[in-house]
Amino acid sequence: MKQVYCGMAAVIEKGDEILILKRTKERDFEPEAWETVTGRLDEEESPVEGILREIQEETGLTAEVIMPLDTGFFYRGGKEFPMVFISYYCRYIEGEVKLDWEHTEYKWIKLDDALKLPDLKHFHVMLKNLKKIKEFLPENFKYSFSPAIKS
Amino acid sequence: MKQVYCGMAAVIEKGDEILILKRTKERDFEPEAWETVTGRLDEEESPVEGILREIQEETGLTAEVIMPLDTGFFYRGGKEFPMVFISYYCRYIEGEVKLDWEHTEYKWIKLDDALKLPDLKHFHVMLKNLKKIKEFLPENFKYSFSPAIKS
Repeated sequence: MKQVYCGMAAVIEKGDEILILKRTKERDFEPEAWETVTGRLDEEESPVEGILREIQEETGLTAEVIMPLDTGFFYRGGKEFPMVFISYYCRYIEGEVKLDWEHTEYKWIKLDDALKLPDLKHFHVMLKNLKKIKEFLPENFKYSFSPAIKS
Repeated sequence: MKQVYCGMAAVIEKGDEILILKRTKERDFEPEAWETVTGRLDEEESPVEGILREIQEETGLTAEVIMPLDTGFFYRGGKEFPMVFISYYCRYIEGEVKLDWEHTEYKWIKLDDALKLPDLKHFHVMLKNLKKIKEFLPENFKYSFSPAIKS
């Protein structure tokens, strides 16, 4: 068993809308495509700590993680880059969107509209699971998560 | 950002009980402790494919993955072994338990009894999230998951 990179994705919900971001045209992978917040794990952090850091870096927003929505494996741009990803359902807490160099635009859109966007095809499993679970979850439902253990 | 190992854990539910296994005394990590099914990702498989393979190998059972319950980071036995883990809620489908070399005993126990077992302390976050989500999920609820993309 080899080591892998770990990537995270986040669908951030605010009221009845979710946040999508447009990738800059300089990005090596899928330039100018709409996506959700994504990022890679830093050293000695849990994936939940990692995605909250990425949300802050890429959008300036403070959010909380409700629960995971999908997990998977792919090669990000080549066989030397095996990646496991974990997608999370997150809830907006506070802040105004401030984009960094990775994105040029943002939109808050309805989940059903996101499911119609071809750009978001890599995120459809995550978004469909979100739609399915939201039928049953009470407001303010939230998992607890294991913190990173650094020793 | 460094690469990590990816580990998975599974709480397998059958009726109102879950499966726990006792580690052999020869194991390098936590010998003779009770645990749930755990394992590490093989090459080119998704974590969901990996945990279903591990369930088959360690217990002989066929199961399905309902949804993830926890994610985290720890060092498995040393700094050279950084590990991200994903825990899953799984449902028994068929088969009789046949243990492999990794375990000497098994038990089906109630979730509330599992939460009282000190051996299972590393699994408490997962088990508590399971208890919480089960209040709301209808029978037969199940996520879809992204398959491994191998090219």
